[in-house]
Amino acid sequence: MPAYRAPLREYRFLLKDVLRIDRYANLPGFAEAPLDLIDQVLVEGAKFCEEVLQPLNKVGDKHGCVRHADGSVTTPPGFKEAYRQLVEAGWPALSSDPAFGGQGLPHVVALAWGEMTSSANMAFGMYRGLTHGAYEAIHTHGSDAQKQTYLPKLVSGQWTGTMNLTEPHCGTDLGMLRTKAVPQADGTYRITGQKIFISAGEHDLAENIIHLVLARIEGAPAGTKGISLFIVPKVLIEADGSLGKRNGVVCGKIEEKMGIHANSTCVLDYDNAVGYLIGGENRGLNAMFTMMNVARLAVGLQGLSQSEVAYQNAAAYAKDRLQGRSLTGPKNLGGPADAIIVHPDVRRMLMEVKSFNESARAFAFWTALHGDLLQVSPDDKVREKASDYMALITPVIKAYLTDKGYANATLCQQVFGGHGYIEEHGMSQFVRDARIAQIYEGANGIQALDLVGRKLAANGGRALFAYLREMDEVVRAHEADADMAPFIEGLRAAKDQLQEAAQWLMSNAMSNFDNAGAASHDFLNLFGIASLTYMWAVMAKAALDAKRSGRGGDSFYDAKLATGRYFLARVLPEAGAHLAKLKSGAAPLMVLPVEAF
Amino acid sequence: MPAYRAPLREYRFLLKDVLRIDRYANLPGFAEAPLDLIDQVLVEGAKFCEEVLQPLNKVGDKHGCVRHADGSVTTPPGFKEAYRQLVEAGWPALSSDPAFGGQGLPHVVALAWGEMTSSANMAFGMYRGLTHGAYEAIHTHGSDAQKQTYLPKLVSGQWTGTMNLTEPHCGTDLGMLRTKAVPQADGTYRITGQKIFISAGEHDLAENIIHLVLARIEGAPAGTKGISLFIVPKVLIEADGSLGKRNGVVCGKIEEKMGIHANSTCVLDYDNAVGYLIGGENRGLNAMFTMMNVARLAVGLQGLSQSEVAYQNAAAYAKDRLQGRSLTGPKNLGGPADAIIVHPDVRRMLMEVKSFNESARAFAFWTALHGDLLQVSPDDKVREKASDYMALITPVIKAYLTDKGYANATLCQQVFGGHGYIEEHGMSQFVRDARIAQIYEGANGIQALDLVGRKLAANGGRALFAYLREMDEVVRAHEADADMAPFIEGLRAAKDQLQEAAQWLMSNAMSNFDNAGAASHDFLNLFGIASLTYMWAVMAKAALDAKRSGRGGDSFYDAKLATGRYFLARVLPEAGAHLAKLKSGAAPLMVLPVEAF
Repeated sequence: MPAYRAPLREYRFLLKDVLRIDRYANLPGFAEAPLDLIDQVLVEGAKFCEEVLQPLNKVGDKHGCVRHADGSVTTPPGFKEAYRQLVEAGWPALSSDPAFGGQGLPHVVALAWGEMTSSANMAFGMYRGLTHGAYEAIHTHGSDAQKQTYLPKLVSGQWTGTMNLTEPHCGTDLGMLRTKAVPQADGTYRITGQKIFISAGEHDLAENIIHLVLARIEGAPAGTKGISLFIVPKVLIEADGSLGKRNGVVCGKIEEKMGIHANSTCVLDYDNAVGYLIGGENRGLNAMFTMMNVARLAVGLQGLSQSEVAYQNAAAYAKDRLQGRSLTGPKNLGGPADAIIVHPDVRRMLMEVKSFNESARAFAFWTALHGDLLQVSPDDKVREKASDYMALITPVIKAYLTDKGYANATLCQQVFGGHGYIEEHGMSQFVRDARIAQIYEGANGIQALDLVGRKLAANGGRALFAYLREMDEVVRAHEADADMAPFIEGLRAAKDQLQEAAQWLMSNAMSNFDNAGAASHDFLNLFGIASLTYMWAVMAKAALDAKRSGRGGDSFYDAKLATGRYFLARVLPEAGAHLAKLKSGAAPLMVLPVEAF
Repeated sequence: MPAYRAPLREYRFLLKDVLRIDRYANLPGFAEAPLDLIDQVLVEGAKFCEEVLQPLNKVGDKHGCVRHADGSVTTPPGFKEAYRQLVEAGWPALSSDPAFGGQGLPHVVALAWGEMTSSANMAFGMYRGLTHGAYEAIHTHGSDAQKQTYLPKLVSGQWTGTMNLTEPHCGTDLGMLRTKAVPQADGTYRITGQKIFISAGEHDLAENIIHLVLARIEGAPAGTKGISLFIVPKVLIEADGSLGKRNGVVCGKIEEKMGIHANSTCVLDYDNAVGYLIGGENRGLNAMFTMMNVARLAVGLQGLSQSEVAYQNAAAYAKDRLQGRSLTGPKNLGGPADAIIVHPDVRRMLMEVKSFNESARAFAFWTALHGDLLQVSPDDKVREKASDYMALITPVIKAYLTDKGYANATLCQQVFGGHGYIEEHGMSQFVRDARIAQIYEGANGIQALDLVGRKLAANGGRALFAYLREMDEVVRAHEADADMAPFIEGLRAAKDQLQEAAQWLMSNAMSNFDNAGAASHDFLNLFGIASLTYMWAVMAKAALDAKRSGRGGDSFYDAKLATGRYFLARVLPEAGAHLAKLKSGAAPLMVLPVEAF
């Protein structure tokens, strides 16, 4: 049976040594959350994830969700009780606004909690993740009355939320959507249409589900300019806040999917359902992007989460499974064979994943910290930079972490040999679950296009230039430190390649937009590798500092440095291949006529 | 619903223009199979695969195999009838020895048939594939009586075969196996033990199953030196050849797997089963390798087969699905959006797979042709080189084609967006089915170790040197041809990098065997890329020749050249990354203590 242990030591290292969040003790949220309190929260969270959520992961995969003739959906055995415990313990409220019952902790704390829940049980975690997206949209764009009506119960978890974008004929291209909103005399709307791929669209965990639905008000302009966002509760809410009668929305089908079986992916049929406009007429896409950006970071984290839990199980198996002998002579002389971790190629697979997990986690935390600063810093410059970074880096976190999450889950499955292919050991589930994260919330190709087509050019490239400068500063600050030499050399190389790629784009993409599209995937991957190289430099510095200050008593910091060196030797070389590919331009992709495919 | 069309035009191009098999018309097998006859066979084969096998692929995935309380196994609906038609049409006998009822066609023809069956229905194809492995083992190592007893019915498909290697505690490390063979007075043995992961181990397609079982004769030496191979029929065969009573082997369980649901993966319990020694006492591993090498090429082909069928469906979807507009202005002005094939990143995914499929197929055919020459050439030199190449290249075909097969099936699934994640479109099945090919018949890490640890060094590196020389000759022959310039430049670069990697191994692997293990994965990938670059050079030459001789009337040859140029621009750059990684040596992988994982 698969197992999971939350990486608490890694969280401590990141929050204390790397991000040094005690620097921000003067800011709201941080002020109320000194490191020892955060640690307590994470220890409790870890316990819940390890003991309650993880044991349900395989159950959920096997049983899936069941839709009944009346459109109701039953979640897998144990899910309802686990959700009850989750709400009771107050976990959903972690980083939400105290004005609506939230605990107001920094996002970095919620991020760690998010990773743990997703590693323990990704399909379960999604019920909460979607709810948080709905919370963000209403918190940012809702009227005061809407906030009062919905937020407290979304924060507590008493209700859950969804995002309704996709229709059968349109996903990426929302301008084509047809769901119709008809204005009523009382200011409400009636919503009619079909939405598909609605995660957590119907279930039995909560007494109400708050759907956020994109639709077109009758007579609105064509395309994306005519899309509005509506709040459509599954059960209507009376004036006194109590639940009234069922709204006109029903689950017509749940999809059979490759993975995340325990999360119900619904076809939702809206038939004259009562909807409440949020964020203004024809401003729906704007409001939806608030949810999407929150969701995209969360999805990136799902990639990391599956890579982490798959790694833990692969490492345990590699230490336990006896098969063959080390190439350099037996290591387990008393036993019938050596543990397979003696084999360099098994090590390669484990180090590949370990060196990703630790730096990708740093990258996600570092990004989430900017999310916090964006909200609470009193310094305009800090907020501007944080805003720039969030915009620039969100597509990278989403796409790079999920592509690697899937690849890494596959590598960890490979460590198990044939035992990884049968469902018994749970490795197949990690792969199948991880796969969706590359697809939803904007397929990874869309993220790459967002990065090169929108984020890179915004404000004259201000965000990327600041990011590159920041890398330069790290190089300058530590290039004289001999122990930092490989990390500085690696960072310099990565940064130069990223800069060269950006320059190539500036020179070639405006004359032929297809050059941007053709370069986008490799640019995003190069960006991801450079970012993790940056994180390794920062982590190496933190590890060296800890050792030098006498805190390196155990092997943690040595392992950190060795893992970083693996990354430099074995992952960083891919940057050059991405650069060479993207510089070959659009022609090799576009020259064939459509009939040749 | 997914569809499949056999790539008949590609087969014609390879057999006629690239491999020019009419050169071998003087050799047995080839003599009886002129190109137009081969073409007829393939056209008929394509029809069977497209019309009979492909429609059952999804059925098989959904229903899987069912084991009953008595240990019998029922295959999915339609499989039994399809198998009956297969046998009736004589397909199993295609390239088998005419002395036992085979048709004696060259392996290259059987290879095309193998690809088609596997693309159409990989799980179904395995029932035949395993049988062919059993046929090869008995054909090579069996006594005359054994050949007479088993081969005609394995050739006709009346019976099927299996390979029984793995036990619960050992897979890769066969030296640990415990299944016991007790000699009987009549010269037979009694076999007792448990085998797992036995593909096609029990089913209702054929009246008998011939298990080839590795076991240890009582008192045999420990380790791999004490392993023998036994023929253990499911149903015992009477002296007159008729079926007698059930032997002591029963299916104890079938595994729940990630994919290939329609192939029964069995736990087989042997309890005093009657077995017949084949290939001599304690010579079992030797005999088993005959099966393994046949099987490894077939498994490599499975990788290609899933990449091909996934590509076909992704290309069709990309031409059909309307979503968004081209970055360079609308291409489908009358429609609500452009087909997604206008987007460079969708093109990238398709070209990536297309450029692999065409060259990997050439590589497999080229290798199979050497397999034919090894068997039928009268020239000692030709046979020696063919033998060298088969040994050297088998692990590359197995591992490189299956790693790419899985990655490519995943890319093609990505083209479908969310529609790829649901089971409805069949893309998930291609990914889940393709995954096993990286694992069975020796996990890909084992293939890489076989390549660097055994195959490279054999006969003082004779095979690799010949291969590199052959690449040099192609460079020399065509470097003056301006139209060949990018292909020659690419081949030269790839060959130089492969040679540099081999030299690094020679200099560093003997002093530290872990350097060989640490380099193995990247060396194999570099070998794969260099080989496909070589194939692209050869195919480009063939395409140019066809055009120059006036046979380039349609766009086929132009598309071939353009697809090759994509490979050079967008795949070849990965070679440099593999070289850099492998040259970093074992230290980055091996330095961490086991406890740090």
